[in-house]
Amino acid sequence: MQKIINDPVHGFITIDDKLIYDLLAHPYFQRLRRIKQMALAYLVYPGAVHTRLHHALGAYHLMYKVLIELRLKGISITAEEEQAVKIAILLHDIGHAPFSHALEHSLVSVHHEEISLLIMQKLNEEFDGQLQRAIEIFKGTYSKKFLHQLVSSQLDMDRLDYLARDSFFTGVSEGVIGYDRIIKMITVLNDELVVEEKGIHSVENFLIARRLMYWQVYFHKTVMSSEMMLVQILKRAKELIHQGVSLFSTPSLSFFLKEEKQSADFSSDPRCLEYYTQLDDTDISTAIKYWATCDDQILKTLCTNLIQRKLFKLKFVSLEEGKPLFKNWLDRVQPNKEQENYFWLEGDVLHTGYDNKGGKINILFKNGSLKEISALEHGLISAELQVPVKKHYICHLN
Amino acid sequence: MQKIINDPVHGFITIDDKLIYDLLAHPYFQRLRRIKQMALAYLVYPGAVHTRLHHALGAYHLMYKVLIELRLKGISITAEEEQAVKIAILLHDIGHAPFSHALEHSLVSVHHEEISLLIMQKLNEEFDGQLQRAIEIFKGTYSKKFLHQLVSSQLDMDRLDYLARDSFFTGVSEGVIGYDRIIKMITVLNDELVVEEKGIHSVENFLIARRLMYWQVYFHKTVMSSEMMLVQILKRAKELIHQGVSLFSTPSLSFFLKEEKQSADFSSDPRCLEYYTQLDDTDISTAIKYWATCDDQILKTLCTNLIQRKLFKLKFVSLEEGKPLFKNWLDRVQPNKEQENYFWLEGDVLHTGYDNKGGKINILFKNGSLKEISALEHGLISAELQVPVKKHYICHLN
Amino acid sequence: MQKIINDPVHGFITIDDKLIYDLLAHPYFQRLRRIKQMALAYLVYPGAVHTRLHHALGAYHLMYKVLIELRLKGISITAEEEQAVKIAILLHDIGHAPFSHALEHSLVSVHHEEISLLIMQKLNEEFDGQLQRAIEIFKGTYSKKFLHQLVSSQLDMDRLDYLARDSFFTGVSEGVIGYDRIIKMITVLNDELVVEEKGIHSVENFLIARRLMYWQVYFHKTVMSSEMMLVQILKRAKELIHQGVSLFSTPSLSFFLKEEKQSADFSSDPRCLEYYTQLDDTDISTAIKYWATCDDQILKTLCTNLIQRKLFKLKFVSLEEGKPLFKNWLDRVQPNKEQENYFWLEGDVLHTGYDNKGGKINILFKNGSLKEISALEHGLISAELQVPVKKHYICHLN
Amino acid sequence: MQKIINDPVHGFITIDDKLIYDLLAHPYFQRLRRIKQMALAYLVYPGAVHTRLHHALGAYHLMYKVLIELRLKGISITAEEEQAVKIAILLHDIGHAPFSHALEHSLVSVHHEEISLLIMQKLNEEFDGQLQRAIEIFKGTYSKKFLHQLVSSQLDMDRLDYLARDSFFTGVSEGVIGYDRIIKMITVLNDELVVEEKGIHSVENFLIARRLMYWQVYFHKTVMSSEMMLVQILKRAKELIHQGVSLFSTPSLSFFLKEEKQSADFSSDPRCLEYYTQLDDTDISTAIKYWATCDDQILKTLCTNLIQRKLFKLKFVSLEEGKPLFKNWLDRVQPNKEQENYFWLEGDVLHTGYDNKGGKINILFKNGSLKEISALEHGLISAELQVPVKKHYICHLN
Repeated sequence: MQKIINDPVHGFITIDDKLIYDLLAHPYFQRLRRIKQMALAYLVYPGAVHTRLHHALGAYHLMYKVLIELRLKGISITAEEEQAVKIAILLHDIGHAPFSHALEHSLVSVHHEEISLLIMQKLNEEFDGQLQRAIEIFKGTYSKKFLHQLVSSQLDMDRLDYLARDSFFTGVSEGVIGYDRIIKMITVLNDELVVEEKGIHSVENFLIARRLMYWQVYFHKTVMSSEMMLVQILKRAKELIHQGVSLFSTPSLSFFLKEEKQSADFSSDPRCLEYYTQLDDTDISTAIKYWATCDDQILKTLCTNLIQRKLFKLKFVSLEEGKPLFKNWLDRVQPNKEQENYFWLEGDVLHTGYDNKGGKINILFKNGSLKEISALEHGLISAELQVPVKKHYICHLN
Repeated sequence: MQKIINDPVHGFITIDDKLIYDLLAHPYFQRLRRIKQMALAYLVYPGAVHTRLHHALGAYHLMYKVLIELRLKGISITAEEEQAVKIAILLHDIGHAPFSHALEHSLVSVHHEEISLLIMQKLNEEFDGQLQRAIEIFKGTYSKKFLHQLVSSQLDMDRLDYLARDSFFTGVSEGVIGYDRIIKMITVLNDELVVEEKGIHSVENFLIARRLMYWQVYFHKTVMSSEMMLVQILKRAKELIHQGVSLFSTPSLSFFLKEEKQSADFSSDPRCLEYYTQLDDTDISTAIKYWATCDDQILKTLCTNLIQRKLFKLKFVSLEEGKPLFKNWLDRVQPNKEQENYFWLEGDVLHTGYDNKGGKINILFKNGSLKEISALEHGLISAELQVPVKKHYICHLN
Repeated sequence: MQKIINDPVHGFITIDDKLIYDLLAHPYFQRLRRIKQMALAYLVYPGAVHTRLHHALGAYHLMYKVLIELRLKGISITAEEEQAVKIAILLHDIGHAPFSHALEHSLVSVHHEEISLLIMQKLNEEFDGQLQRAIEIFKGTYSKKFLHQLVSSQLDMDRLDYLARDSFFTGVSEGVIGYDRIIKMITVLNDELVVEEKGIHSVENFLIARRLMYWQVYFHKTVMSSEMMLVQILKRAKELIHQGVSLFSTPSLSFFLKEEKQSADFSSDPRCLEYYTQLDDTDISTAIKYWATCDDQILKTLCTNLIQRKLFKLKFVSLEEGKPLFKNWLDRVQPNKEQENYFWLEGDVLHTGYDNKGGKINILFKNGSLKEISALEHGLISAELQVPVKKHYICHLN
Repeated sequence: MQKIINDPVHGFITIDDKLIYDLLAHPYFQRLRRIKQMALAYLVYPGAVHTRLHHALGAYHLMYKVLIELRLKGISITAEEEQAVKIAILLHDIGHAPFSHALEHSLVSVHHEEISLLIMQKLNEEFDGQLQRAIEIFKGTYSKKFLHQLVSSQLDMDRLDYLARDSFFTGVSEGVIGYDRIIKMITVLNDELVVEEKGIHSVENFLIARRLMYWQVYFHKTVMSSEMMLVQILKRAKELIHQGVSLFSTPSLSFFLKEEKQSADFSSDPRCLEYYTQLDDTDISTAIKYWATCDDQILKTLCTNLIQRKLFKLKFVSLEEGKPLFKNWLDRVQPNKEQENYFWLEGDVLHTGYDNKGGKINILFKNGSLKEISALEHGLISAELQVPVKKHYICHLN
């Protein structure tokens, strides 16, 4: 069998494996069509409405490509491993909550990767154990470690695709990366992914582009403020429900608003996964439309303002600088204590350009020596880029 | 004031007029963020999730560009006319129903342009008559006819943008057009838009690309079948509600499901417009998720299958060829009469490559003579392209 | 071995075969770096300075891709055949004269494909017979006919590359084609290349785009007039040399200016090929710079005007319309008989959108039936597109 | 008057000024068609055959754009200044030698900008003083300093264009910059160009991309080695001519080979400029073809190897590391002293990512404060990027 799918980013994506096709067609995977990759970033970048499903397909496509390259270089990968690592990347984000990262901890207290694993295990049952190897690769327990690194590492197919895709759909050229060159330059040494010397500049560009995308797009003030409003909305709704207030929500959303689910719940209560796999952006968006007319002034304000794009003001200021601004705001807005909690937010964002604690990017030189990307003479990925950049923000109703 | 917006299609879009900025910020316009430009085409082309708002901004941008070009050519356009024609294009689609054309006649019996006009008039009141000239241009009653043609004609900014945008987001290169060249070649003669001789090939390419997009994308079998399922869903829901069955729907959707609204209703009952401007893709999508678990077997089947992407089969066959296929289907599926009506659909699609009944595209030659694009010697836009192509289809539950 | 080459059109081109690498490195192939693909078109389209070598690499790359696709579809292609057909496309244009088609018949009376074959045979000797199968494929005598069709037919890799490349470097979006989709849709039936049903629109777009490129770019009035001046320059130089006038030229150019070489000469006199393979755009350009200061008024005028881009005026007019224009020109310019012959040119250009005499494009339907692209119901490639379009031109010193 | 020119990089370039059009048409400007922007880089990047003329048009286009933006921001620029600054950028490189930077100091001992100025002055005479203001802007003596900065500074239209263009034609995505965003963000404060706060990331990206292009492309080992061979060729030819050996060269090349011209010569001897403006890549390329068959073994080797792309090996090694390599080479190649001088080269390349000695890039914050790009907290343009990176190389006949 062979199916091709048009992708404006990578051209044509080929599906030539029955099992992979069946996984694509499964409702669990189709759910990702209804989850935006970049949450509310489209409020600033109108093109950024692409979905998790599209990203999963793209990452699968890059995996398809990199496997061909690795084999050309003599790296041994069996047909079973090929299928497994393709499945692992295809499903790596299948456990994402609605609005992707924006609601990561607002709906359940479980990391999306943990849920991805649970869903893969469920699919493994349905498909008679055919996902066993994919699961091992995903978990990092499979014997060939580099296969896991292709799915999850500093330079995995996930990151290559999302950077390329997010810069494409936002139109932010600062995020353009040479992913095709990186893929040509990746190889395996001692069961670890490394990058050939000729790929140094592409990797430097990739790390710099990633950092620029963080500060220009993912941490864009308006993007952040809209996503914080979304978080406040969920928090307020939960509180009201806890107080016994009756609020509209879809059945699957209700389930998670009523009480905070933990990892343990997902294991013990099958309804957790059942409801979770029915939850998507639609449930949240509809609830917000309803709540925009509810009686609670706080929830109503948050929802109405988000729908009409009357967003909180967000500023990066130091803790010190924030204090007088907070006082001014209190004087001007005169909130009660409860309003204050919902309408004035402070916190930190943090990003590390190249964080080699979670794994290094090593460069393989022609003479066989190996050097970390941050240890190159005259390299761009200097010590500074490894220091986390932390910015304090205030974010409030205007 | 000056705002710029990133657009992956056109680069940067500039907003430099306070009134236009305020219209953009208005909830009526923001609603377009929640209406997909290409309805369910994303089930085939995963990138095609762009919104009506994005298209409206794009068409506005092309208007911005073409006005600069026309002025360079000595065409007189006052500052007031400039603002008005920009507003007219920005709002030309503001009356679109959820899922754009797919639900055009399923929710209300009023054409979307008529509703666009009603909404513009409402905005005109809110903005103290500042949209008066824009409305005249939109309606075609303004003295300078060519301004209306820039908004609505065979070669308007609407068409240039949607073709460019749809081919960009689907990744279908057959739809690529030289819109920037066309814009450079447009001029005005006797108050009519015409295209300079050097633009002939770009216009030919535009008409051919449009035709190819119709048959490859807009009339793609899977796209059509999904949109027909959507239409059937709305039809069934209305019928059930008419029968007194209780079905979930949001307040604004309820309003339109209960009884079919006509033009007259929009004039007489202010709730029509009020509810309409709250209606978007979310309302429909959520209803479908609810209805997928309802008691009615027909509605449940339609909704479940659409959500899970188990779509009707669609085939282009002649009326004759369809007959035995219908019999086979009856034998195989054994539907009751009601099911038959919902699960077997037949009809025609029709497209005319260049339909000069609604206005001609005229070419201005260097010697001052004028010729219609279809009358050129050795031209590509032959008589054949003016004949409507009609294809009969069958579309049914598998 | 594996080498990758950056190509702005196709991304990365991979060379993974020693023989192919050696052919690339051969001076005969390197010569193509100094021959512009589009001759003097850069006088109108400043970006169109790409070379024959670049095109040859691009066509090779598409061959690389299509072979992968064909094998995925179960078409049997041996490793030897793969190498051979890649070599055949790589060398298909190796016999091109300087300035590509513009000087096709001005330097020698031999078609460039015939010389390509001679050069391949010479290389075959150098490489101990390793090009034998490539030569057979190129000539069309190899048993598997479809391999020849990949190199030379209505839909060969040559055409796909040059259209994509020429539209890229000129920036003419009317020539954009979906070559990657066509490559996915090509298959083999009864040893003939055919296109699967789903590729119909891409093939239509390809044929239309090709036609548009002919009239907008290749037959652009200014492009044509500059190339005609070039032809006149060579003609005049030959005549002067024949008359015994001493004119500068490089040794290899001298050889061909002195007397017209025929096919037979290339077979009998080894110097023909030796000199030919040293000839490139540089020889012609330098000669023109010299001749711009020569004593012959005609040659001097032609050369000076070409260098300074003071080009002949070219107009498409009927034979009839041309007559009075010629008289006016005579009156105005007052040329002597010799000048008249060089400074006033008339002729016809001819292009057929889809010329199925040289081979057909057949569409393979799902039901197994086969139809020519021009025989499709509602197809774009109508009878009209098969009629040669002929335009008469006049072209003269201003 | 209005002319448009297709540019695959920027779209359409508009010429709407008679004087500018006449300058474009002048033989001095047309000469730039025959000078490659990136010299011999096409030996590595086959697409990099674009010309100085194309770059000059592109830089002019960006000037066209930035002037519109500056005026929108209320910066006063008169029509005369507009014309002048456009002319200044159009002609900024008109004094370039053949093969651009590669031969900068091999043909004459005068910097190309000095010659650009001489040519502008010559044109100023021809055009009756109409270039006076352009010359002042080019020299930096015009009252409005920011106009000069648009032509020549850390962030001028020259750099924006060449980076965008070189990355486009090489296909090196690491060089992609957001020049359109930068242009939107440039403004003027106290007669100096500054960049608005929102443009920080685009400027950072620009500086990083520039650095990457230097190391990946401009200082690519193969590019450098080919250009060094070219320099050696000219050096050897001069020496031979000095020794009285008779070597072919075109008249204009002869003039410069015979004796080294200094600034003073260009002022005193009108033939200098006359010959210089007739010199282009063709003269050099043809000479190399001739010299490849000359009697001098050194010149013959250099020329043959360059034509056939048998290039010197280049390695970046320290002075220390180079020593044993040099010995090995001597042992293996056994050159005589003269050959040694031509066939073994050593030296340093040097590049500074952001060199604020030649002018700073200042960021204008919303609060009105100004900070240099390298002084930003958490900025990418750290102290390290201001330190010149110096690499020692050896480059030798293989």
